[in-house]
Amino acid sequence: MPKISYATVRRLSRYYRSLDLAERRHISTVSSEELARQNHLTAAQVRKDLSFFGAFGRRGLGYNVSDLKRNISRILGIDRTWNVAVIGAGNIGRALINFEQFKIQGFLIRLVLDNDSMKIGKKVGDLVVKDMKGLPEVVKKIDIDIAIICVPSNAAQKVVDMLVVKEVGIKAILNFAPVSLSVPKGVTVRNENMAIEIEALSFALTNPDYVR
Amino acid sequence: MPKISYATVRRLSRYYRSLDLAERRHISTVSSEELARQNHLTAAQVRKDLSFFGAFGRRGLGYNVSDLKRNISRILGIDRTWNVAVIGAGNIGRALINFEQFKIQGFLIRLVLDNDSMKIGKKVGDLVVKDMKGLPEVVKKIDIDIAIICVPSNAAQKVVDMLVVKEVGIKAILNFAPVSLSVPKGVTVRNENMAIEIEALSFALTNPDYVR
Repeated sequence: MPKISYATVRRLSRYYRSLDLAERRHISTVSSEELARQNHLTAAQVRKDLSFFGAFGRRGLGYNVSDLKRNISRILGIDRTWNVAVIGAGNIGRALINFEQFKIQGFLIRLVLDNDSMKIGKKVGDLVVKDMKGLPEVVKKIDIDIAIICVPSNAAQKVVDMLVVKEVGIKAILNFAPVSLSVPKGVTVRNENMAIEIEALSFALTNPDYVR
Repeated sequence: MPKISYATVRRLSRYYRSLDLAERRHISTVSSEELARQNHLTAAQVRKDLSFFGAFGRRGLGYNVSDLKRNISRILGIDRTWNVAVIGAGNIGRALINFEQFKIQGFLIRLVLDNDSMKIGKKVGDLVVKDMKGLPEVVKKIDIDIAIICVPSNAAQKVVDMLVVKEVGIKAILNFAPVSLSVPKGVTVRNENMAIEIEALSFALTNPDYVR
């Protein structure tokens, strides 16, 4: 089985968005050139990314928009719903719970945990904040697939260690704490580092001639 | 002048973090192989990315950690401070204002604007929320370099249109609204799409054998 880089996965997410938009505009076929243009890539890159997963288009005819969208949706695992837990009910945690886009894409936030007695028992959106102490039981009971870490940096690893033990068994973690997390083999961590994108802006301001 | 892709800029941000960590550990030289290993890339990629900006290392000797860190810091424009405005004092806006990492890296949030009379005049961190109506004057007065859009999707383009007019002159925008923004040439927009990273997790859960 070929190994797929996250750069490829990220591009698939972007193709999916382009196809979704095309479908809404009642466009039935799209070329690799058009997908490339919309995403500032080369057509060769688009064809290579898609070729990992099968032969979706026909030379000279392009891709059927609905078929390719459905295929990418299946590859990305967004043709179903996932149970998500938010750990930490601070500003980022609350923002995510109210983030409609997650729900639309099938990422259903079922649980929010915190260790602050001022927050436990309070409502955030439709959820009541639960005590972090109950983490192992409640994460298993609700059958959580994905945990989102929104606790302070110095607490993040401790929370992750609780999530990945065999009895709890979390295999996918989205990390908002600006710290590198250690996880056992078989667990995937993706870091949402808000400082990276803003550095792309200071780069653009500093080097206007370099910018594409 | 060669055009640099944002994928390259993003990798420079990651090399910077590796170098920062090496410096804290009192490591004085680092090879392209080591930078590659830490960032799950090839050494050829590391050398290519750096070669756009000059000749930093010497064959067989590797890179001087402090020198390369200083050079990347200069290239990324993070060897100085930037004045940042947050537009929208909802959960994401408030999370960013309290996000220490921005301040540490020189991105100083000087201004927060909202159009909600319940929020205007209230404090968020050390800042008082100002009325959106005053946007043109206050953005110019405080000499804002970067605007962060944290308003709802349906308001985002209107806010951006106010920011990019010649009299206000914002050239760099970080967009948290899940919507595509139109800007004039010479203005850079980076989108912080939280739904993209979580899709990488559903991909990993769906295709455990594909994951690197």
